[in-house]
Amino acid sequence: MKQTTIERIRKFSDERDWDQFHSPANLAKSIVIEAAELLECFQWNDQECNMQHVKEELADVIVYCQNMLDKLGLDVDEIVNMKLTQNEEKYPVEKSRGNAVKYDEL
Amino acid sequence: MKQTTIERIRKFSDERDWDQFHSPANLAKSIVIEAAELLECFQWNDQECNMQHVKEELADVIVYCQNMLDKLGLDVDEIVNMKLTQNEEKYPVEKSRGNAVKYDEL
Amino acid sequence: MKQTTIERIRKFSDERDWDQFHSPANLAKSIVIEAAELLECFQWNDQECNMQHVKEELADVIVYCQNMLDKLGLDVDEIVNMKLTQNEEKYPVEKSRGNAVKYDEL
Amino acid sequence: MKQTTIERIRKFSDERDWDQFHSPANLAKSIVIEAAELLECFQWNDQECNMQHVKEELADVIVYCQNMLDKLGLDVDEIVNMKLTQNEEKYPVEKSRGNAVKYDEL
Repeated sequence: MKQTTIERIRKFSDERDWDQFHSPANLAKSIVIEAAELLECFQWNDQECNMQHVKEELADVIVYCQNMLDKLGLDVDEIVNMKLTQNEEKYPVEKSRGNAVKYDEL
Repeated sequence: MKQTTIERIRKFSDERDWDQFHSPANLAKSIVIEAAELLECFQWNDQECNMQHVKEELADVIVYCQNMLDKLGLDVDEIVNMKLTQNEEKYPVEKSRGNAVKYDEL
Repeated sequence: MKQTTIERIRKFSDERDWDQFHSPANLAKSIVIEAAELLECFQWNDQECNMQHVKEELADVIVYCQNMLDKLGLDVDEIVNMKLTQNEEKYPVEKSRGNAVKYDEL
Repeated sequence: MKQTTIERIRKFSDERDWDQFHSPANLAKSIVIEAAELLECFQWNDQECNMQHVKEELADVIVYCQNMLDKLGLDVDEIVNMKLTQNEEKYPVEKSRGNAVKYDEL
Protein backbone atom coordinates (compact mmCIF):
# COMPACT_ATOMS: atom_id res chain seq x y z
CA MET A 1 0.00 0.00 0.00
CA LYS A 2 1.31 3.42 -0.89
CA GLN A 3 2.18 5.89 1.82
CA THR A 4 -0.46 8.30 0.50
CA THR A 5 -3.15 5.63 0.94
CA ILE A 6 -1.96 4.89 4.48
CA GLU A 7 -2.05 8.61 5.26
CA ARG A 8 -5.60 8.85 3.92
CA ILE A 9 -6.67 6.00 6.22
CA ARG A 10 -5.16 7.86 9.19
CA LYS A 11 -6.69 11.18 8.16
CA PHE A 12 -10.13 9.56 7.87
CA SER A 13 -10.04 8.48 11.53
CA ASP A 14 -8.34 11.63 12.76
CA GLU A 15 -10.94 13.92 11.23
CA ARG A 16 -13.72 11.94 12.91
CA ASP A 17 -11.90 11.67 16.23
CA TRP A 18 -12.33 7.92 16.09
CA ASP A 19 -9.03 6.97 17.68
CA GLN A 20 -10.91 6.74 20.98
CA PHE A 21 -12.88 3.77 19.64
CA HIS A 22 -9.87 2.06 18.10
CA SER A 23 -8.71 -0.01 21.03
CA PRO A 24 -6.83 -3.11 19.89
CA ALA A 25 -9.74 -5.27 21.09
CA ASN A 26 -12.31 -3.23 19.15
CA LEU A 27 -10.15 -3.35 16.03
CA ALA A 28 -9.80 -7.12 16.38
CA LYS A 29 -13.60 -7.34 16.54
CA SER A 30 -13.87 -5.05 13.53
CA ILE A 31 -11.46 -7.13 11.45
CA VAL A 32 -13.42 -10.32 12.08
CA ILE A 33 -16.75 -8.55 11.41
CA GLU A 34 -15.52 -7.28 8.04
CA ALA A 35 -13.87 -10.61 7.24
CA ALA A 36 -17.23 -12.29 7.78
CA GLU A 37 -18.87 -9.80 5.41
CA LEU A 38 -16.23 -10.74 2.86
CA LEU A 39 -17.06 -14.40 3.44
CA GLU A 40 -20.74 -13.60 2.93
CA CYS A 41 -19.89 -12.95 -0.75
CA PHE A 42 -19.22 -16.71 -0.95
CA GLN A 43 -21.86 -17.94 1.52
CA TRP A 44 -23.90 -20.07 -0.86
CA ASN A 45 -21.69 -20.16 -3.92
CA ASP A 46 -17.96 -20.75 -4.03
CA GLN A 47 -17.62 -20.13 -7.72
CA GLU A 48 -19.36 -16.85 -8.42
CA CYS A 49 -19.33 -13.65 -6.47
CA ASN A 50 -20.24 -10.00 -6.72
CA MET A 51 -16.78 -8.57 -7.38
CA GLN A 52 -17.75 -5.07 -6.27
CA HIS A 53 -18.82 -6.42 -2.88
CA VAL A 54 -15.63 -8.45 -2.61
CA LYS A 55 -13.52 -5.36 -3.27
CA GLU A 56 -15.41 -3.32 -0.69
CA GLU A 57 -15.25 -5.91 2.06
CA LEU A 58 -11.61 -6.83 1.41
CA ALA A 59 -10.77 -3.11 1.53
CA ASP A 60 -12.57 -2.85 4.89
CA VAL A 61 -10.48 -5.69 6.31
CA ILE A 62 -7.28 -4.06 5.04
CA VAL A 63 -8.22 -0.64 6.46
CA TYR A 64 -8.85 -2.10 9.92
CA CYS A 65 -5.57 -4.06 9.71
CA GLN A 66 -3.79 -0.75 9.00
CA ASN A 67 -5.62 0.85 11.95
CA MET A 68 -4.35 -1.95 14.17
CA LEU A 69 -0.78 -1.68 12.91
CA ASP A 70 -0.94 2.04 13.66
CA LYS A 71 -2.55 1.60 17.07
CA LEU A 72 0.06 -0.91 18.20
CA GLY A 73 2.96 0.82 16.45
CA LEU A 74 3.77 -2.28 14.45
CA ASP A 75 5.79 -2.45 11.25
CA VAL A 76 3.94 -4.53 8.66
CA ASP A 77 7.10 -5.78 6.96
CA GLU A 78 8.60 -6.83 10.27
CA ILE A 79 5.60 -8.85 11.46
CA VAL A 80 4.87 -10.43 8.08
CA ASN A 81 8.49 -11.47 7.60
CA MET A 82 8.62 -12.81 11.15
CA LYS A 83 5.52 -14.89 10.45
CA LEU A 84 6.76 -16.10 7.07
CA THR A 85 9.94 -17.32 8.74
CA GLN A 86 7.78 -19.27 11.20
CA ASN A 87 5.61 -20.65 8.41
CA GLU A 88 8.61 -21.73 6.35
CA GLU A 89 9.73 -23.82 9.32
CA LYS A 90 6.26 -25.20 10.06
CA TYR A 91 5.62 -26.08 6.43
CA PRO A 92 8.83 -27.42 4.87
CA VAL A 93 8.59 -27.39 1.07
CA GLU A 94 9.26 -31.11 0.72
CA LYS A 95 6.44 -32.07 3.13
CA SER A 96 3.88 -29.42 2.19
CA ARG A 97 4.22 -29.32 -1.55
CA GLY A 98 0.82 -29.82 -3.13
CA ASN A 99 -1.07 -30.58 0.04
CA ALA A 100 -2.99 -28.42 2.48
CA VAL A 101 -2.48 -30.53 5.59
CA LYS A 102 -2.08 -28.45 8.75
CA TYR A 103 1.43 -28.35 10.21
CA ASP A 104 0.53 -30.34 13.32
CA GLU A 105 -0.63 -33.22 11.15
CA LEU A 106 2.29 -33.13 8.70
CA MET B 1 4.16 -3.43 2.61
CA LYS B 2 7.41 -3.50 0.70
CA GLN B 3 7.59 -5.20 -2.66
CA THR B 4 10.18 -7.65 -1.31
CA THR B 5 7.74 -8.76 1.41
CA ILE B 6 4.96 -9.19 -1.14
CA GLU B 7 7.30 -11.25 -3.31
CA ARG B 8 8.21 -13.44 -0.34
CA ILE B 9 4.51 -14.11 0.30
CA ARG B 10 4.08 -15.18 -3.34
CA LYS B 11 7.23 -17.31 -3.30
CA PHE B 12 6.03 -19.08 -0.15
CA SER B 13 2.86 -20.28 -1.89
CA ASP B 14 4.55 -20.94 -5.23
CA GLU B 15 7.21 -23.20 -3.71
CA ARG B 16 4.50 -25.26 -1.99
CA ASP B 17 2.22 -25.33 -5.04
CA TRP B 18 -0.57 -23.95 -2.90
CA ASP B 19 -2.19 -21.77 -5.53
CA GLN B 20 -4.56 -24.67 -6.22
CA PHE B 21 -6.06 -24.25 -2.73
CA HIS B 22 -6.26 -20.47 -2.94
CA SER B 23 -9.69 -20.06 -4.45
CA PRO B 24 -11.27 -16.73 -3.51
CA ALA B 25 -13.80 -18.60 -1.36
CA ASN B 26 -11.09 -20.54 0.49
CA LEU B 27 -9.10 -17.35 1.04
CA ALA B 28 -12.19 -15.60 2.41
CA LYS B 29 -12.60 -18.50 4.84
CA SER B 30 -8.92 -18.27 5.75
CA ILE B 31 -9.10 -14.53 6.45
CA VAL B 32 -12.01 -14.95 8.84
CA ILE B 33 -10.35 -17.94 10.53
CA GLU B 34 -7.17 -15.97 11.17
CA ALA B 35 -9.14 -12.86 12.18
CA ALA B 36 -10.91 -14.97 14.81
CA GLU B 37 -7.53 -16.19 16.10
CA LEU B 38 -6.51 -12.53 16.40
CA LEU B 39 -9.73 -11.86 18.32
CA GLU B 40 -8.91 -14.78 20.61
CA CYS B 41 -6.03 -12.67 21.96
CA PHE B 42 -8.74 -10.43 23.43
CA GLN B 43 -11.36 -13.09 24.24
CA TRP B 44 -11.55 -12.60 28.00
CA ASN B 45 -9.57 -9.41 28.44
CA ASP B 46 -9.82 -6.27 26.40
CA GLN B 47 -6.95 -4.50 28.10
CA GLU B 48 -4.06 -6.94 28.07
CA CYS B 49 -2.89 -9.23 25.36
CA ASN B 50 0.05 -11.38 24.38
CA MET B 51 1.69 -9.05 21.88
CA GLN B 52 3.63 -11.85 20.18
CA HIS B 53 0.38 -13.70 19.46
CA VAL B 54 -1.24 -10.50 18.22
CA LYS B 55 1.65 -9.91 15.80
CA GLU B 56 1.48 -13.46 14.49
CA GLU B 57 -2.28 -13.51 13.95
CA LEU B 58 -2.43 -10.02 12.45
CA ALA B 59 0.38 -11.05 10.08
CA ASP B 60 -1.64 -14.14 9.08
CA VAL B 61 -4.65 -11.97 8.23
CA ILE B 62 -2.47 -9.63 6.16
CA VAL B 63 -0.80 -12.51 4.29
CA TYR B 64 -4.16 -13.99 3.29
CA CYS B 65 -5.40 -10.55 2.23
CA GLN B 66 -2.35 -10.28 -0.02
CA ASN B 67 -3.08 -13.77 -1.38
CA MET B 68 -6.61 -12.64 -2.21
CA LEU B 69 -5.45 -9.42 -3.88
CA ASP B 70 -3.09 -11.52 -5.99
CA LYS B 71 -5.68 -14.18 -6.79
CA LEU B 72 -8.23 -11.63 -7.97
CA GLY B 73 -5.68 -9.34 -9.61
CA LEU B 74 -6.73 -6.42 -7.42
CA ASP B 75 -4.72 -3.29 -6.71
CA VAL B 76 -4.72 -2.56 -2.98
CA ASP B 77 -4.48 1.22 -3.41
CA GLU B 78 -7.33 1.23 -5.85
CA ILE B 79 -9.78 -0.74 -3.70
CA VAL B 80 -8.84 0.99 -0.45
CA ASN B 81 -9.19 4.45 -2.00
CA MET B 82 -12.50 3.46 -3.58
CA LYS B 83 -13.76 2.30 -0.17
CA LEU B 84 -12.46 5.40 1.64
CA THR B 85 -14.35 7.57 -0.83
CA GLN B 86 -17.50 5.61 0.00
CA ASN B 87 -16.86 5.85 3.73
CA GLU B 88 -16.24 9.58 3.57
CA GLU B 89 -19.69 9.95 2.06
CA LYS B 90 -21.36 7.55 4.48
CA TYR B 91 -19.72 9.17 7.48
CA PRO B 92 -19.63 12.96 7.01
CA VAL B 93 -17.18 14.56 9.44
CA GLU B 94 -19.76 16.86 10.98
CA LYS B 95 -22.13 13.98 11.80
CA SER B 96 -19.62 11.31 12.74
CA ARG B 97 -17.12 13.29 14.74
CA GLY B 98 -16.61 11.68 18.12
CA ASN B 99 -19.31 9.04 17.78
CA ALA B 100 -19.31 5.48 16.52
CA VAL B 101 -22.88 5.30 15.31
CA LYS B 102 -23.33 3.22 12.16
CA TYR B 103 -24.05 5.16 8.99
CA ASP B 104 -27.61 3.87 8.64
CA GLU B 105 -28.45 5.27 12.07
CA LEU B 106 -26.70 8.62 11.62
CA MET C 1 -31.26 -29.81 24.17
CA LYS C 2 -32.35 -31.66 27.29
CA GLN C 3 -32.69 -29.82 30.57
CA THR C 4 -30.04 -32.07 32.10
CA THR C 5 -27.56 -31.03 29.41
CA ILE C 6 -28.38 -27.36 29.98
CA GLU C 7 -27.87 -27.84 33.71
CA ARG C 8 -24.48 -29.48 33.09
CA ILE C 9 -23.40 -26.46 31.00
CA ARG C 10 -24.37 -24.15 33.85
CA LYS C 11 -22.70 -26.33 36.49
CA PHE C 12 -19.48 -26.37 34.46
CA SER C 13 -19.23 -22.56 34.59
CA ASP C 14 -20.48 -22.28 38.15
CA GLU C 15 -17.91 -24.70 39.51
CA ARG C 16 -15.13 -22.72 37.86
CA ASP C 17 -16.56 -19.33 38.87
CA TRP C 18 -16.45 -18.28 35.21
CA ASP C 19 -19.61 -16.20 35.23
CA GLN C 20 -17.39 -13.15 35.84
CA PHE C 21 -15.85 -13.64 32.36
CA HIS C 22 -19.16 -14.28 30.64
CA SER C 23 -20.14 -10.74 29.75
CA PRO C 24 -22.40 -10.65 26.70
CA ALA C 25 -19.56 -9.06 24.70
CA ASN C 26 -17.07 -11.76 25.70
CA LEU C 27 -19.60 -14.48 24.86
CA ALA C 28 -20.22 -12.89 21.46
CA LYS C 29 -16.47 -13.00 20.85
CA SER C 30 -16.37 -16.61 22.03
CA ILE C 31 -19.18 -17.68 19.71
CA VAL C 32 -17.44 -16.22 16.67
CA ILE C 33 -14.09 -17.71 17.72
CA GLU C 34 -15.58 -21.19 18.00
CA ALA C 35 -17.60 -20.71 14.81
CA ALA C 36 -14.35 -19.94 12.99
CA GLU C 37 -12.81 -23.12 14.40
CA LEU C 38 -15.81 -25.00 13.02
CA LEU C 39 -15.23 -23.33 9.66
CA GLU C 40 -11.58 -24.40 9.82
CA CYS C 41 -12.81 -28.00 9.38
CA PHE C 42 -13.83 -26.90 5.86
CA GLN C 43 -11.00 -24.40 5.16
CA TRP C 44 -9.45 -26.12 2.16
CA ASN C 45 -12.01 -28.77 1.39
CA ASP C 46 -15.75 -28.36 1.24
CA GLN C 47 -16.50 -32.01 0.70
CA GLU C 48 -14.57 -33.88 3.36
CA CYS C 49 -14.11 -33.09 6.98
CA ASN C 50 -12.94 -34.59 10.21
CA MET C 51 -16.31 -35.38 11.77
CA GLN C 52 -14.91 -35.57 15.30
CA HIS C 53 -13.57 -32.02 14.98
CA VAL C 54 -16.86 -30.83 13.53
CA LYS C 55 -18.76 -32.30 16.49
CA GLU C 56 -16.41 -30.69 18.99
CA GLU C 57 -16.46 -27.23 17.43
CA LEU C 58 -20.21 -27.23 16.80
CA ALA C 59 -20.70 -28.26 20.44
CA ASP C 60 -18.50 -25.34 21.53
CA VAL C 61 -20.65 -22.90 19.56
CA ILE C 62 -23.82 -24.36 21.08
CA VAL C 63 -22.43 -24.21 24.63
CA TYR C 64 -21.52 -20.52 24.27
CA CYS C 65 -24.95 -19.80 22.78
CA GLN C 66 -26.50 -21.39 25.87
CA ASN C 67 -24.20 -19.30 28.08
CA MET C 68 -25.43 -16.19 26.29
CA LEU C 69 -29.10 -17.17 26.58
CA ASP C 70 -28.52 -17.69 30.30
CA LYS C 71 -26.56 -14.47 30.76
CA LEU C 72 -29.22 -12.37 29.07
CA GLY C 73 -32.16 -14.32 30.51
CA LEU C 74 -33.45 -15.14 27.04
CA ASP C 75 -35.84 -17.93 26.13
CA VAL C 76 -34.51 -19.85 23.14
CA ASP C 77 -37.95 -20.76 21.79
CA GLU C 78 -39.11 -17.18 22.03
CA ILE C 79 -36.20 -15.65 20.13
CA VAL C 80 -36.02 -18.39 17.50
CA ASN C 81 -39.76 -18.19 16.81
CA MET C 82 -39.56 -14.39 16.66
CA LYS C 83 -36.75 -14.64 14.10
CA LEU C 84 -38.50 -17.33 12.07
CA THR C 85 -41.55 -15.08 11.83
CA GLN C 86 -39.29 -12.31 10.50
CA ASN C 87 -37.58 -14.69 8.07
CA GLU C 88 -40.87 -16.02 6.78
CA GLU C 89 -41.82 -12.46 5.86
CA LYS C 90 -38.42 -11.59 4.37
CA TYR C 91 -38.30 -14.79 2.35
CA PRO C 92 -41.78 -15.53 0.97
CA VAL C 93 -42.00 -19.14 -0.22
CA GLU C 94 -43.01 -18.21 -3.76
CA LYS C 95 -40.03 -15.88 -4.24
CA SER C 96 -37.39 -17.83 -2.35
CA ARG C 97 -38.16 -21.37 -3.39
CA GLY C 98 -35.02 -22.99 -4.78
CA ASN C 99 -32.84 -19.90 -4.73
CA ALA C 100 -30.46 -18.47 -2.16
CA VAL C 101 -30.78 -14.81 -3.10
CA LYS C 102 -30.62 -12.46 -0.13
CA TYR C 103 -33.91 -10.83 0.87
CA ASP C 104 -32.81 -7.35 -0.13
CA GLU C 105 -32.19 -8.57 -3.66
CA LEU C 106 -35.35 -10.64 -3.99
CA MET D 1 -35.35 -25.88 22.27
CA LYS D 2 -38.81 -27.39 22.00
CA GLN D 3 -39.53 -29.99 19.36
CA THR D 4 -42.16 -27.71 17.79
CA THR D 5 -39.51 -24.99 17.32
CA ILE D 6 -37.10 -27.48 15.77
CA GLU D 7 -39.86 -28.65 13.44
CA ARG D 8 -40.59 -25.05 12.42
CA ILE D 9 -36.89 -24.54 11.54
CA ARG D 10 -37.00 -27.66 9.35
CA LYS D 11 -40.30 -26.65 7.73
CA PHE D 12 -38.89 -23.21 6.89
CA SER D 13 -36.06 -24.75 4.85
CA ASP D 14 -38.19 -27.51 3.39
CA GLU D 15 -40.82 -25.13 2.05
CA ARG D 16 -38.13 -23.08 0.32
CA ASP D 17 -36.25 -26.12 -0.98
CA TRP D 18 -33.10 -24.79 0.65
CA ASP D 19 -31.63 -28.11 1.70
CA GLN D 20 -29.63 -28.02 -1.54
CA PHE D 21 -27.69 -24.99 -0.22
CA HIS D 22 -27.19 -26.43 3.24
CA SER D 23 -23.96 -28.29 2.72
CA PRO D 24 -21.99 -28.62 5.97
CA ALA D 25 -19.38 -26.18 4.59
CA ASN D 26 -22.01 -23.58 3.68
CA LEU D 27 -23.64 -23.94 7.09
CA ALA D 28 -20.27 -23.49 8.79
CA LYS D 29 -19.81 -20.28 6.78
CA SER D 30 -23.33 -19.19 7.73
CA ILE D 31 -22.76 -19.78 11.44
CA VAL D 32 -19.62 -17.64 11.46
CA ILE D 33 -21.32 -14.92 9.38
CA GLU D 34 -24.22 -14.69 11.82
CA ALA D 35 -21.89 -14.93 14.81
CA ALA D 36 -20.00 -11.91 13.45
CA GLU D 37 -23.28 -10.01 13.13
CA LEU D 38 -23.94 -10.84 16.76
CA LEU D 39 -20.48 -9.52 17.62
CA GLU D 40 -21.25 -6.34 15.70
CA CYS D 41 -23.78 -5.51 18.45
CA PHE D 42 -20.72 -5.09 20.70
CA GLN D 43 -18.27 -3.69 18.14
CA TRP D 44 -17.58 -0.32 19.76
CA ASN D 45 -19.21 -0.76 23.12
CA ASP D 46 -18.93 -3.75 25.43
CA GLN D 47 -21.41 -2.46 27.97
CA GLU D 48 -24.47 -1.44 26.01
CA CYS D 49 -26.18 -3.15 23.15
CA ASN D 50 -29.38 -3.13 21.15
CA MET D 51 -31.11 -6.10 22.76
CA GLN D 52 -33.47 -6.63 19.84
CA HIS D 53 -30.49 -6.99 17.48
CA VAL D 54 -28.77 -9.34 19.90
CA LYS D 55 -31.85 -11.56 20.04
CA GLU D 56 -32.16 -11.65 16.25
CA GLU D 57 -28.52 -12.46 15.59
CA LEU D 58 -28.24 -15.03 18.38
CA ALA D 59 -31.39 -16.68 17.00
CA ASP D 60 -29.77 -16.78 13.55
CA VAL D 61 -26.72 -18.56 14.96
CA ILE D 62 -28.92 -21.07 16.77
CA VAL D 63 -31.04 -21.76 13.67
CA TYR D 64 -27.96 -22.49 11.54
CA CYS D 65 -26.57 -24.72 14.32
CA GLN D 66 -29.83 -26.68 14.22
CA ASN D 67 -29.58 -26.88 10.41
CA MET D 68 -26.08 -28.33 10.80
CA LEU D 69 -27.14 -30.84 13.44
CA ASP D 70 -29.92 -31.95 11.08
CA LYS D 71 -27.67 -32.06 8.02
CA LEU D 72 -25.08 -34.21 9.75
CA GLY D 73 -27.60 -36.29 11.69
CA LEU D 74 -26.05 -35.28 15.00
CA ASP D 75 -27.68 -35.45 18.41
CA VAL D 76 -27.18 -32.19 20.26
CA ASP D 77 -27.15 -33.78 23.71
CA GLU D 78 -24.60 -36.35 22.61
CA ILE D 79 -22.10 -33.88 21.15
CA VAL D 80 -22.49 -31.30 23.92
CA ASN D 81 -22.04 -33.91 26.63
CA MET D 82 -19.04 -35.36 24.80
CA LYS D 83 -17.47 -31.88 24.65
CA LEU D 84 -18.29 -31.08 28.28
CA THR D 85 -16.52 -34.28 29.32
CA GLN D 86 -13.47 -33.12 27.36
CA ASN D 87 -13.65 -29.63 28.85
CA GLU D 88 -13.96 -30.97 32.38
CA GLU D 89 -10.69 -32.81 31.84
CA LYS D 90 -8.94 -29.86 30.16
CA TYR D 91 -10.08 -27.42 32.82
CA PRO D 92 -9.90 -29.10 36.24
CA VAL D 93 -11.90 -27.13 38.80
CA GLU D 94 -8.95 -26.62 41.15
CA LYS D 95 -6.75 -25.14 38.42
CA SER D 96 -9.37 -23.16 36.49
CA ARG D 97 -11.42 -21.70 39.29
CA GLY D 98 -11.67 -17.95 38.88
CA ASN D 99 -9.24 -17.64 35.99
CA ALA D 100 -9.71 -17.67 32.22
CA VAL D 101 -6.32 -19.07 31.26
CA LYS D 102 -6.44 -21.39 28.26
CA TYR D 103 -5.94 -25.06 29.02
CA ASP D 104 -2.59 -25.28 27.25
CA GLU D 105 -1.23 -22.58 29.55
CA LEU D 106 -2.73 -23.94 32.78
